[in-house]
Amino acid sequence: MNVAPVFSDIDDSPLESAEAMEARLFEIGARRYHNLHPFHRMLHSGKLNKGQVQAWALNRFYYQSSIPIKDAHVLSRFRDRNIRLEWRKRIEDHDGIAGDEGGIERWFILTDGLGLDRAYVESTKGILPATRFAVDAYVNFVAQRSPLEAIASSLTELFAPTLHEERIVGMLEHYDFITPDVMAYFKRRMTQAPEDAQFALKYVKENARNPEERQAVCDALIFKTNVLWVQLDALYHAYVSGHVPPGAFRPEVNG
Amino acid sequence: MNVAPVFSDIDDSPLESAEAMEARLFEIGARRYHNLHPFHRMLHSGKLNKGQVQAWALNRFYYQSSIPIKDAHVLSRFRDRNIRLEWRKRIEDHDGIAGDEGGIERWFILTDGLGLDRAYVESTKGILPATRFAVDAYVNFVAQRSPLEAIASSLTELFAPTLHEERIVGMLEHYDFITPDVMAYFKRRMTQAPEDAQFALKYVKENARNPEERQAVCDALIFKTNVLWVQLDALYHAYVSGHVPPGAFRPEVNG
Repeated sequence: MNVAPVFSDIDDSPLESAEAMEARLFEIGARRYHNLHPFHRMLHSGKLNKGQVQAWALNRFYYQSSIPIKDAHVLSRFRDRNIRLEWRKRIEDHDGIAGDEGGIERWFILTDGLGLDRAYVESTKGILPATRFAVDAYVNFVAQRSPLEAIASSLTELFAPTLHEERIVGMLEHYDFITPDVMAYFKRRMTQAPEDAQFALKYVKENARNPEERQAVCDALIFKTNVLWVQLDALYHAYVSGHVPPGAFRPEVNG
Repeated sequence: MNVAPVFSDIDDSPLESAEAMEARLFEIGARRYHNLHPFHRMLHSGKLNKGQVQAWALNRFYYQSSIPIKDAHVLSRFRDRNIRLEWRKRIEDHDGIAGDEGGIERWFILTDGLGLDRAYVESTKGILPATRFAVDAYVNFVAQRSPLEAIASSLTELFAPTLHEERIVGMLEHYDFITPDVMAYFKRRMTQAPEDAQFALKYVKENARNPEERQAVCDALIFKTNVLWVQLDALYHAYVSGHVPPGAFRPEVNG
């Protein structure tokens, strides 16, 4: 509802083809995806203590548990039943279907494994306000922007499998409180994310039909990289630099 | 549109009267208002360099320039013309009327004085993503929550004059690049904010009629203290700790 964001660190010359747009999308991923964030480097190389890993899992739960709400907004934007059928799979992946507990339940296996109280996690009362604002910005984005931008904002999934693989290997190697079963969420996403990402990429390549729409697709991906980056900046500031804001999770009290 | 936030650091026993609610509101201000934030302590005591002050003024412009949009949402929530007339003053205070350039224009005097290009400031392209998410969360809050909560979220103004006085004195004393004329915004707010705050306080005392509504008023104020606090956390992380996120203002390049 406000002015469109403008971004300064990525080339914004006119995108004359779907292929040029695709190349730009991969450039954005290479320069802005949150695999590059120092907090992830610390997480994956064993540099965090258990309280810091708890803070990450607790905050990230708000993101995970908002994804089906986000996807319900996306689904609501399309009269085309085929797109709704395709997109509904994402809601099922997170909320579960018969025979599959779903991604949110698998996230609880992680927070259980880290010794966090499930009711406390579910209440979201200890999360950082910046986490809430960033995640809510994502939900509002897909509800308020064009359907094309709503789909484009999911394209960070193009870059997720590499990150998840690095995470599984790194966390299992470096933390004695991490076991293979608590990493179930990430293992499952390694097959889900590529399928989802290929659908979304195909959609934006076919439906962004002029340079302005192609730029809007790229800006939606940049917006989403910001949503992810802000969450890690907030975790780093609170739990690495040590500036926990009023009311937020404190490992020594709540962990 | 998502679950209501829950907060853990403030007493949440039932508020049985308007007076009990008022006392709780002042407790929230005393414990959570951003006068307590380390970034403000540094700003007011001369501990920041010019680039850091530029970053603060540049980011804060997004907040300032969103306030009339926020207030237009509030105004739109009321069929009572008297409330609309009262609230319209806030839009006039920021956007200006004949004979008064308004608060946004006075903010440009500050950014001019700091040597920032006005078109760059107005584009908002260098602001921190966390600033955008926090400010947009405020705009969405007043659009989506009850009219009572929309008004309650303005109550940080109860605590603003003391902060502004401290800021004017401290910044004039400590920075050779700050002169009395560039502090015009804050001087003007010292008389505007108390009038606005008294109207809002009277409104919530008269219109929150049971413990649940009084709690919602307090939660709206806590939400707003988070909106302000997150902005300073993000500035501290980027420009004091030195973790400037991709695409954001860099004093040595943009300042």
